Amino acid sequence: MATKKTAPIKAASKAKSKAPIKKMNAFYAQSGGVTSVINASACGVIETARLHKDKIGKVFAGRNGIIGALTEDLIDTSKESASSIAALRQTPSGAFGSCRFKLKSLEANKVEYERLIEVFKAHNIGYFFYNGGGDSADTCFKVSQLSKAMNYPLQAIHVPKTVDNDLPITDCCPGFGSVAKYVAVSALEASFDVRSMCKTSTKVFVLEVMGRHAGWIAAAGGLIEDHGIPVVILFPEIVFDQKKFLARVDKLVKEHGYCTVVVSEGCHHPDGTFLAEQGSKDAFGHAQLGGAAPVVANMVKEALGYKFHWAVADYLQRAARHIASKTDVQQAYELGQKAVELALAGKNAVMPTVERISDVPYKYKIGVADLAKVANVEKFMPRNFISKDGFGITDKCKKYLNPLIAGEDYPKYKNGLPVYVQLKNVAVEKKLKKFDVK
Amino acid sequence: MATKKTAPIKAASKAKSKAPIKKMNAFYAQSGGVTSVINASACGVIETARLHKDKIGKVFAGRNGIIGALTEDLIDTSKESASSIAALRQTPSGAFGSCRFKLKSLEANKVEYERLIEVFKAHNIGYFFYNGGGDSADTCFKVSQLSKAMNYPLQAIHVPKTVDNDLPITDCCPGFGSVAKYVAVSALEASFDVRSMCKTSTKVFVLEVMGRHAGWIAAAGGLIEDHGIPVVILFPEIVFDQKKFLARVDKLVKEHGYCTVVVSEGCHHPDGTFLAEQGSKDAFGHAQLGGAAPVVANMVKEALGYKFHWAVADYLQRAARHIASKTDVQQAYELGQKAVELALAGKNAVMPTVERISDVPYKYKIGVADLAKVANVEKFMPRNFISKDGFGITDKCKKYLNPLIAGEDYPKYKNGLPVYVQLKNVAVEKKLKKFDVK
Repeated sequence: MATKKTAPIKAASKAKSKAPIKKMNAFYAQSGGVTSVINASACGVIETARLHKDKIGKVFAGRNGIIGALTEDLIDTSKESASSIAALRQTPSGAFGSCRFKLKSLEANKVEYERLIEVFKAHNIGYFFYNGGGDSADTCFKVSQLSKAMNYPLQAIHVPKTVDNDLPITDCCPGFGSVAKYVAVSALEASFDVRSMCKTSTKVFVLEVMGRHAGWIAAAGGLIEDHGIPVVILFPEIVFDQKKFLARVDKLVKEHGYCTVVVSEGCHHPDGTFLAEQGSKDAFGHAQLGGAAPVVANMVKEALGYKFHWAVADYLQRAARHIASKTDVQQAYELGQKAVELALAGKNAVMPTVERISDVPYKYKIGVADLAKVANVEKFMPRNFISKDGFGITDKCKKYLNPLIAGEDYPKYKNGLPVYVQLKNVAVEKKLKKFDVK
Repeated sequence: MATKKTAPIKAASKAKSKAPIKKMNAFYAQSGGVTSVINASACGVIETARLHKDKIGKVFAGRNGIIGALTEDLIDTSKESASSIAALRQTPSGAFGSCRFKLKSLEANKVEYERLIEVFKAHNIGYFFYNGGGDSADTCFKVSQLSKAMNYPLQAIHVPKTVDNDLPITDCCPGFGSVAKYVAVSALEASFDVRSMCKTSTKVFVLEVMGRHAGWIAAAGGLIEDHGIPVVILFPEIVFDQKKFLARVDKLVKEHGYCTVVVSEGCHHPDGTFLAEQGSKDAFGHAQLGGAAPVVANMVKEALGYKFHWAVADYLQRAARHIASKTDVQQAYELGQKAVELALAGKNAVMPTVERISDVPYKYKIGVADLAKVANVEKFMPRNFISKDGFGITDKCKKYLNPLIAGEDYPKYKNGLPVYVQLKNVAVEKKLKKFDVK
């Protein structure tokens, strides 16, 4: 795989005037749902910061994301060895803990912003690196505005991350390529299984994947079509048409003896309700939380009588570092690296991005986007990535996806299990009064 | 990993008198649920047979298992190149198709047995290799009895295979080690994910795995305990005690902030009903097929209020060749190889087995079992493999499992996806009248 490496930013010295005058510490936090490569970005941030000790003091990580900043629960990453930090590159999940927490606007919750400034001041923090998706980009953007609004010198850089691949401007989002690879590999393997069994047993296999609003992950299932697998994709972008869907499944089973269905958790009926919300009750009359996969599988059984199996990948897909995409791991690292370089260049309220140069051979460079244009914008699958009938992907989509799942980046193993690092996560001594997060 | 390779059987010449007098063809078929390594056994059978062309003519594979024999739907494996056969070693699923079909006793369905003999005679088949689990061992045993009962020279050798690991005599069953590795790796990765999220979000992750009667697969989830993960295993061998289970989950979440539950699909209530059969109905009053995982997850939510996520691995686990155990792949191959060697040695009604010599370093040899002692016997988890409280595994169990998941055996990849072979599966010309399988 050909990739264009980011050249270290030479503008750093030119932009010196904009950067904090004295050597300051950095704050780094992980936010929202974690991925198999978010720690590779953390690795990129910390390793790059360590190369610039003249300008960046220590990197403090927020324990459980921004909550760590608000509660002054900071982790001193300087206590971790170089090999532990390097091992982050091959460790899934969020090594410092993540959170689902969105700061309100500066007007609505000034207390929290004042607290952030108080913590940053107390720990001499001048750089804020926030590693997350759309909601987190919004938080990061709000923090970036603190600098002016509260007259505190702070540079906020967002490091993109989301398996949903729904951030704008950047060509793709770290975390997505690895989930896409997991989904394509798993769907391929399970399809081989069903094909073996279909003569006397299972004829339809349904795999549920993530993606509440955007169908990028489900789309990856479409890549197995070129391996001769009859596959139906159910996207959140296409309103579910039960009659058309059943006809499609029936046709494929009659032609091939079996078929595979990849359904996005966000697939929904014309009235907007998710397939998973089928209003079922358990024996005690409680609302039953299902999944889209069993609903679709039962629908097939009821209407067509085909024996089925279904799987719900859930966290397995986004945590599957063992089958991560090499492209994805590399980009996650480079975006973390670039975030620090942007900070050193005096930037604020920006996010490094992946800019695709060519599909074959795959070439990209790391670019920069204004955070104001990123926050709260969702990027859905373009209609021309979805086949005309709404159940598959187009060649254009395949060209987009192929390089993102390319290459393997296996973790090291010991006794049959991957060696994933667990950091010491030593707390920085608190200097302030307790603060309760609501 | 130290393994003891099977020495080619030297008894072959001595036992010559018992072997078919003239050079005969072999029949090979895959049966029951497929695995990620059953094709490695096929590879072992075919490659070894090809080394003995003086004694074994062609290897004919049954299309869709024994059904292929009954319907005279035979595949001529001699049409496949050496590289295609070699590629079976890294391809999951059943390359010739499998089936769920159990022959009745010779008394109950003589017509089918007569048909088998007719097909074997027509195609000069003197060796019968059947690759399957417990039910298939029974079929193979019945076929082995044909030789005497119907006065036809035939040697029937069973090649063990089952992810359930429930065959007797053999130390383990090909297919199991790879599922165990998949479950342990996936549970470890998802647990890292939950640990990252637990401060503000998911606190309990439930993973459902296969094993309707025996808890071997679920047990593999217990291996992550040594990686610091709080985990609860629900075995089919231990009657589900809801109160004790909830107390255990609550304790772990209070201590660690989160926990992971690995539930076997065969986990059941005191009255014998599976957890998955909770008697729920959908909005239309239809019985709702669930899974054990959502039932357990909802139970935790209702009683303890913890946010949860759940996954059902289903076919993904047994098809996951991408994360197969090296030990498992190697043993699957060796057992196929040994089956042919046993046939050449004139054996009938036997099954090659794995005999463990030592745990650390792991050493084993390939042994032999009488099929009469294998058929229809299920091997459950010994009680001393399960912890006293019923929710975990003992050190004895860990010692048993560790070598079985050891080593990685990655398939080759192209454009981000594994290169799995699809054989030509050329049909052998039919010589007989049509026969309908009921």
